[in-house]
Amino acid sequence: MTARTGRPTLAVVGATGAVGTVMLKILSQHADIWGEIRLIASPRSAGRKLTVRGEQVEVMALGEEALTGVDVAMFDVPDDIARRWAPVAAALGAVVVDNSGAFRMDPDVPLVVPEVNPHAARVRSRGIIASPNCTTLSMIVALGALHAEFGLRDLVVSSYQAVSGAGRAGIETLRAQMSLVAGTELGTNPGDLRRAVGDGTGPFPEPVALNVVPWAGSLREDGWSSEEMKVRDETRKILGLPELRVAVTCVRVPVITTHSATVHARFEGEVTVDRAREILATAPGVVLCDNPEAGEFPTPADVVGTDPTWVGRLRRALDDPTALELFVCGDNLRKGAALNTAQIAELVAGERGTA
Amino acid sequence: MTARTGRPTLAVVGATGAVGTVMLKILSQHADIWGEIRLIASPRSAGRKLTVRGEQVEVMALGEEALTGVDVAMFDVPDDIARRWAPVAAALGAVVVDNSGAFRMDPDVPLVVPEVNPHAARVRSRGIIASPNCTTLSMIVALGALHAEFGLRDLVVSSYQAVSGAGRAGIETLRAQMSLVAGTELGTNPGDLRRAVGDGTGPFPEPVALNVVPWAGSLREDGWSSEEMKVRDETRKILGLPELRVAVTCVRVPVITTHSATVHARFEGEVTVDRAREILATAPGVVLCDNPEAGEFPTPADVVGTDPTWVGRLRRALDDPTALELFVCGDNLRKGAALNTAQIAELVAGERGTA
Repeated sequence: MTARTGRPTLAVVGATGAVGTVMLKILSQHADIWGEIRLIASPRSAGRKLTVRGEQVEVMALGEEALTGVDVAMFDVPDDIARRWAPVAAALGAVVVDNSGAFRMDPDVPLVVPEVNPHAARVRSRGIIASPNCTTLSMIVALGALHAEFGLRDLVVSSYQAVSGAGRAGIETLRAQMSLVAGTELGTNPGDLRRAVGDGTGPFPEPVALNVVPWAGSLREDGWSSEEMKVRDETRKILGLPELRVAVTCVRVPVITTHSATVHARFEGEVTVDRAREILATAPGVVLCDNPEAGEFPTPADVVGTDPTWVGRLRRALDDPTALELFVCGDNLRKGAALNTAQIAELVAGERGTA
Repeated sequence: MTARTGRPTLAVVGATGAVGTVMLKILSQHADIWGEIRLIASPRSAGRKLTVRGEQVEVMALGEEALTGVDVAMFDVPDDIARRWAPVAAALGAVVVDNSGAFRMDPDVPLVVPEVNPHAARVRSRGIIASPNCTTLSMIVALGALHAEFGLRDLVVSSYQAVSGAGRAGIETLRAQMSLVAGTELGTNPGDLRRAVGDGTGPFPEPVALNVVPWAGSLREDGWSSEEMKVRDETRKILGLPELRVAVTCVRVPVITTHSATVHARFEGEVTVDRAREILATAPGVVLCDNPEAGEFPTPADVVGTDPTWVGRLRRALDDPTALELFVCGDNLRKGAALNTAQIAELVAGERGTA
């Protein structure tokens, strides 16, 4: 432990959740730049022991005591908990990196994707930096690279969102439904899935096994879902394009982890697939996996557990030389949540190191 | 049987397939306008008995004998079989209604959706009428109604396609994979699904349980799939808009039956959601199911086994008053295949009745 003296203290707030679990895995895999790592969760989880960097660490209850003396605090907790405790951590001197929706659209809080807008992380008057929603993160690294070259004009996005975007409850709900339907004829007759699943829809409004559900989040104005509004608003903020036209439809699919999306992106002028390929092949954080002749395109089954944004099915629109079509996949628990949060925390720790 | 004298003779070619099975069900449910109904399939199925209109009918082997004396022949067979036998049936005097891809883009063959362009069925110099691809059919009835009022300018479509679009083999493949993954942790670690499924991917290039696969059909130019080209070309032909801009990405999802799609449709001028609702609520063959506040939107689990095109999640684009967003669902074996074919056959029989 003495070798860690002088290094910054990190707090992981929400250490026991689906994203928290991946955070601990990432902290054990990445270059170890941290001094103490404190694991913090709700009082009912306090005293549990979790493994990080190969060591057992006891979980502390979220409170002022646990947040005192922290240099960087990564939060992955519900919006209301973040809204209450992130400012407390910041007032106690920590830089907070928050993965909830509580602060993303706050004009005094930067919304950061290290591969796209790392500079934004330095301007944080509230001491809080926000990490985007997992659906935005499934595409934004690839889009940022294309935008830097071509200039984005408008976007049409359709998501294929994994159930772990709704946390452990989402995973457990799909697993239970899968066991119920396997080996049966369920899913073949109208309404039979819904009857069989009964109240077992968990965090989803409809059965998700053998089904797709065109809804994520809560209702906003004019029929839009909160998830769809997040993708639009966050994409505009990260790319610094407050007027960007963005049309999104979010759909839940029976996949455990890894969000996918189809993207129709129109740019300021004519684009070529060859140049787009060059950009994506060299963009940090992006893997181009696109050779349909050889059966190569990304799918969640290949992408789950990996860090980058995977891009395939790259085509120029047949009827519009300014538009590209893409299919993107990103692990919603890694880049979509824990990884991006950890990358921002490392960016902040790096500033301190060079200060 | 005597009561049927004078009524047209119908042949169902491909009676034993996934679509053929639904055709027999539809023929048993619809008003009985037919005289003899002949069931025709490959020689290896000849002699099997299938039930239609409550009667056992022996399957005949596809050949000139079986096609002689037929007034209307509905074909649901692979493209190469249709290419060979549809002209034979037509030469023997039948009007052929073909559900394969063999003739859809033939300029001398009309491509018909009875709710959208019934008039086109009368101009058939080859004696063949084509029924569109199931993915086109999942949205075209709703789009046709909106186009008639607003004038369509361009379309961006992303599909969520069921495995039965690939026939019985598609259904069996997903069922087998579902049994393999249920109760396991498969789908959580990179590549584990692919290893577990091994060669058991059936007609799909990747595992489809707990996954989504951005590919359907075969490779066409510049990275486009045949399925994507069909949606574009067929939509243009049915709507009589040869220059319509259409961008499509087709994705297979782990659903047994019922294709879904997100549609971003831009029109010639400003549109309102209120007027679009009125149009869709009264359009024949369309059900508007759109009240997210009450948890109402269509999903495949509700739509499977039903005839109409279901439309939900209707919104006007936030940044473009000329564009609408929709989520559509349609049973790919019914309206997407057997039902549309039967409706065209009934249209033709109706002409004869009034001739």
